[in-house]
Amino acid sequence: MVSKATLKYIKSLQLKKNRDKDNVFVLEGSKNLLELLDSDFEVIKLLCTKTFYDTNEAKLSKLLGVVSVTEQQIIESAGSFKTNNAGLAIVKMRNAAVPDNMREWMLALDRVQDPGNLGTIIRTADWFGVRHIICSPDTVDVYNSKVINATMGSFARVQVHYGSLPKYFQKLEMPVFGALLEGKPLNEVEQPSAGILLMGNESKGISEELRAHVHVPVSIPRVGGAESLNVAIATGILCARFCL
Amino acid sequence: MVSKATLKYIKSLQLKKNRDKDNVFVLEGSKNLLELLDSDFEVIKLLCTKTFYDTNEAKLSKLLGVVSVTEQQIIESAGSFKTNNAGLAIVKMRNAAVPDNMREWMLALDRVQDPGNLGTIIRTADWFGVRHIICSPDTVDVYNSKVINATMGSFARVQVHYGSLPKYFQKLEMPVFGALLEGKPLNEVEQPSAGILLMGNESKGISEELRAHVHVPVSIPRVGGAESLNVAIATGILCARFCL
Repeated sequence: MVSKATLKYIKSLQLKKNRDKDNVFVLEGSKNLLELLDSDFEVIKLLCTKTFYDTNEAKLSKLLGVVSVTEQQIIESAGSFKTNNAGLAIVKMRNAAVPDNMREWMLALDRVQDPGNLGTIIRTADWFGVRHIICSPDTVDVYNSKVINATMGSFARVQVHYGSLPKYFQKLEMPVFGALLEGKPLNEVEQPSAGILLMGNESKGISEELRAHVHVPVSIPRVGGAESLNVAIATGILCARFCL
Repeated sequence: MVSKATLKYIKSLQLKKNRDKDNVFVLEGSKNLLELLDSDFEVIKLLCTKTFYDTNEAKLSKLLGVVSVTEQQIIESAGSFKTNNAGLAIVKMRNAAVPDNMREWMLALDRVQDPGNLGTIIRTADWFGVRHIICSPDTVDVYNSKVINATMGSFARVQVHYGSLPKYFQKLEMPVFGALLEGKPLNEVEQPSAGILLMGNESKGISEELRAHVHVPVSIPRVGGAESLNVAIATGILCARFCL
């Protein structure tokens, strides 16, 4: 049995200010729940269908006390998925700091706005073994449900941090590679074993202020007529160049 | 003055069967209209706001007789954009065949289903100078408004063809590079000056039948934990490898 208050609370978490107040977010769907059960995230509450429960009983049994089996239509009415035959969970955010002395490739995002782009960037980072993404404070919220869903489960393996990028750059002491239209062609850039790859806003690119922090401007040469590349596509191309 | 019948007709073109019957599709928004005016597409009807007309009068004057200036809210009610302060157009499809004796990089798509993915692939192809994309018959329709919008104007420069991929492969006589998880790592693959890059369905990849036509299976090495890469991201990475 799920109370009306719980359902109302879940709905309220669609707003960032409510998520931030309690330091929690919502996960939906089978793929995300299975990644959750394999992760070290703390689960506050999990609603699921009988079918999902029966299929994953071994993993769910360790969450005794926070799991409620309920009907699919109740899960769908509380969440944002049109169809959800698995369940949803309220999960505690993980607010770890960026480790000191990182010596591996990281991503930095300056004001990326589209939830689908951030989610796809997280998924792509995960593919290439990038474990940390640092974001300017005005980048879209990683706990937005559209972001989480676009990660296809990679939210569990990639840590996303928010804060002043210049401060992060200073602390991390790694070379900053900035994706800039006027940068050096990617095949002519030397590749260190670690560094920060900085990507800019969808329409405005990297801000003037942050450009001053870029050590190596890098570009993806244009052969045809498109005005720009999508930021997630550009991130994928540059990760394939630097992280392999 | 725009008739009710015209508005109803525009709405009807949201369905593929209606677009195919008359061989037309709908374009919306400033970016798409400006690309249209610079292209050789035949415009059947164009509705635009007074502001858009005044700003682009020189280009619009060559379309005398098919342009109607109307109010923003009428354009928005007929189209799919929530906000559209420019206009929309009914445009004739361009059904050119794939040229014989192509000796340049092309893309082939096997059952790509998501409109955003196809649109982003078209935009990416345009960036890398790929001028033709051949699609299996069950790939999402390029004239779907979500596809057109995701191309960010590149629909005007990249030609998308539908038909039997094995027949195209036979006709084109170029090596087929297939994106396959078990393929050769992309940095170990020889790069000819021309070829066909074949990408598969979002969840199922390249079909069994088409795998038999792949000359060079190629993969993007995985370092981290993600199960897969988004198909548009993988296309971008492979285009950057082969087309630069």
